Amino acid sequence: MLVGRIVGTVVATQKEPRLEGLKFFVVKRVDIDGGLSEAFVVAVDAVGAGLGETVLCATGSAARQTPLTEGRPVDAVVMAIIDTWDANGRVVYDKAKEG
Amino acid sequence: MLVGRIVGTVVATQKEPRLEGLKFFVVKRVDIDGGLSEAFVVAVDAVGAGLGETVLCATGSAARQTPLTEGRPVDAVVMAIIDTWDANGRVVYDKAKEG
Amino acid sequence: MLVGRIVGTVVATQKEPRLEGLKFFVVKRVDIDGGLSEAFVVAVDAVGAGLGETVLCATGSAARQTPLTEGRPVDAVVMAIIDTWDANGRVVYDKAKEG
Amino acid sequence: MLVGRIVGTVVATQKEPRLEGLKFFVVKRVDIDGGLSEAFVVAVDAVGAGLGETVLCATGSAARQTPLTEGRPVDAVVMAIIDTWDANGRVVYDKAKEG
Amino acid sequence: MLVGRIVGTVVATQKEPRLEGLKFFVVKRVDIDGGLSEAFVVAVDAVGAGLGETVLCATGSAARQTPLTEGRPVDAVVMAIIDTWDANGRVVYDKAKEG
Repeated sequence: MLVGRIVGTVVATQKEPRLEGLKFFVVKRVDIDGGLSEAFVVAVDAVGAGLGETVLCATGSAARQTPLTEGRPVDAVVMAIIDTWDANGRVVYDKAKEG
Repeated sequence: MLVGRIVGTVVATQKEPRLEGLKFFVVKRVDIDGGLSEAFVVAVDAVGAGLGETVLCATGSAARQTPLTEGRPVDAVVMAIIDTWDANGRVVYDKAKEG
Repeated sequence: MLVGRIVGTVVATQKEPRLEGLKFFVVKRVDIDGGLSEAFVVAVDAVGAGLGETVLCATGSAARQTPLTEGRPVDAVVMAIIDTWDANGRVVYDKAKEG
Repeated sequence: MLVGRIVGTVVATQKEPRLEGLKFFVVKRVDIDGGLSEAFVVAVDAVGAGLGETVLCATGSAARQTPLTEGRPVDAVVMAIIDTWDANGRVVYDKAKEG
Repeated sequence: MLVGRIVGTVVATQKEPRLEGLKFFVVKRVDIDGGLSEAFVVAVDAVGAGLGETVLCATGSAARQTPLTEGRPVDAVVMAIIDTWDANGRVVYDKAKEG
C-alpha cells in the first residue's frame, strides 16, 4: 500500500457504467519524511475520506477487494484514513496535531 | 487510475483474434500541473472517447473489468472522459473551457 | 499495452514444462517519437511476429488471456503486429514504408 | 519479492471493515549492498515480524495468498523474516550478527 | 519476463507456512548489453537453477502459474534457464561459452 494525501477530485460524467456512484480522488504520494512528491494516482474512495486527509491506498487487483469496487474497472482505492504513522523512531504524521 | 490525454491511435490488422473490434489509443500521461509527460500507454477505448480528450485509464487486471474488454489480452482501458479535475485548490483542467 | 520492437530471441531448453512450445522474443520499448529505449522485456509470441517488427505487448495477467498463454507462467505477450501508429498528428511508424 | 527493513507502523481506525485486525508496517527497500533506500511500501504483517527486522515482502495479488490476507484489499505482505542473505559471494545480512 | 543472473540466496526459517520447501534466489536484472544492473528481485526457483546462471523470471500473478508456486504468496519465479539470447544481431549471452 502507499501513503498518500488527497489533494483534489476528478469529475467525469461520460464513463463506463460500472463506475457509476464512485468518487475519484487525486492522491499525491507521501515520501518517508512526510513530504509530498509530484507523483499522483487517481483512487476511488471506499472509506468516506476527504480533501487534505492522509490515507492508505491499495493498488492493482487489491483495489477491487472492497464491496464498493468489486467487479469494477478500478486499480486504486482509498481504504483507510491514517491517524498516525512513524518511521525511524519519529512520528511522521499525527492527524490529531494537524491544524 | 492515471490521468491521460489521447494523442494518437494504433492500427494493427494482424493480431490475436480476441482483440477484434477494439480501438487502440495512444495516451500520454498528464502530470499534476496538467502538462503532458513523454510517458505513454496504449489503451483500449471503452467509452467512445476521441483524439485530444483528457481521460481516466485503468491499468492491470482492472482493464478487463468492462463488458468490452473481459477475457481479452488488454492491460489498459480508457474508462471515463474527464470533465474537470483539480489539485491543490486549483482547477487543472476544465473540458468546457478548452477551445 | 506498450509499443515495442522485436530485436532478438531467447532460447531455453531447461524450463518449466508449461512453457514448452512458446517462442520468446526480446522486445525493446519504443518511445513516443518512435526511437528505441534501452528498456526491454521478454515476451511470448502469440501472433507469428518476426524480428524487426513493431508490435503491441500486453503485460501482467493480461498476457495470459490468449489461447496460447492461458495458465502458463507468462507475464508479457506479443498480441498484435502494428501497421501504423501516430501521435500528435504525426505518423510515428508506417510498416508499409519500412525498407 | 523484495527485501525490506521494517522501520515503522501505520495506525488507522477509520478503514475498510475487511482490514480489521491487520497490522501495517512501514517497510523500506533494502538495496543489493544492504543499504536502505528512501523508497518504502506499507505492508501487512503475516508472520509476527517486528520493528528493525529484515524481511521478505510479496506484492500485488501474491499479497493475498495467505490465510490472513485472502479477500482483503491488501497489495503488500510481510511473509518471511530473513535469517541471512548473500549476493556476489558476500553475506549482505546475518540476523545472528546484528546487535 | 525479465532476464536475470542468480547472484545469491535468501534464507528464512520464520515464514508463512505456504512458503515451506521453496528456494529463494537473489536475481539481478541483466540489461540489453548483458551487463548486470543494481536492481534485483527475490524469486522462487521452479527449474532447479543454480548460482551464476542466467535465467528468465516471470513476475506478478504469472509467478503462481507453476505447480510449485500455485496458491502461494510468491510474486517472482525463475521458470527457465537461458541457453542463449541475442539482441540487435549480436549474441548477448551463450551459456556454452561461459567458463
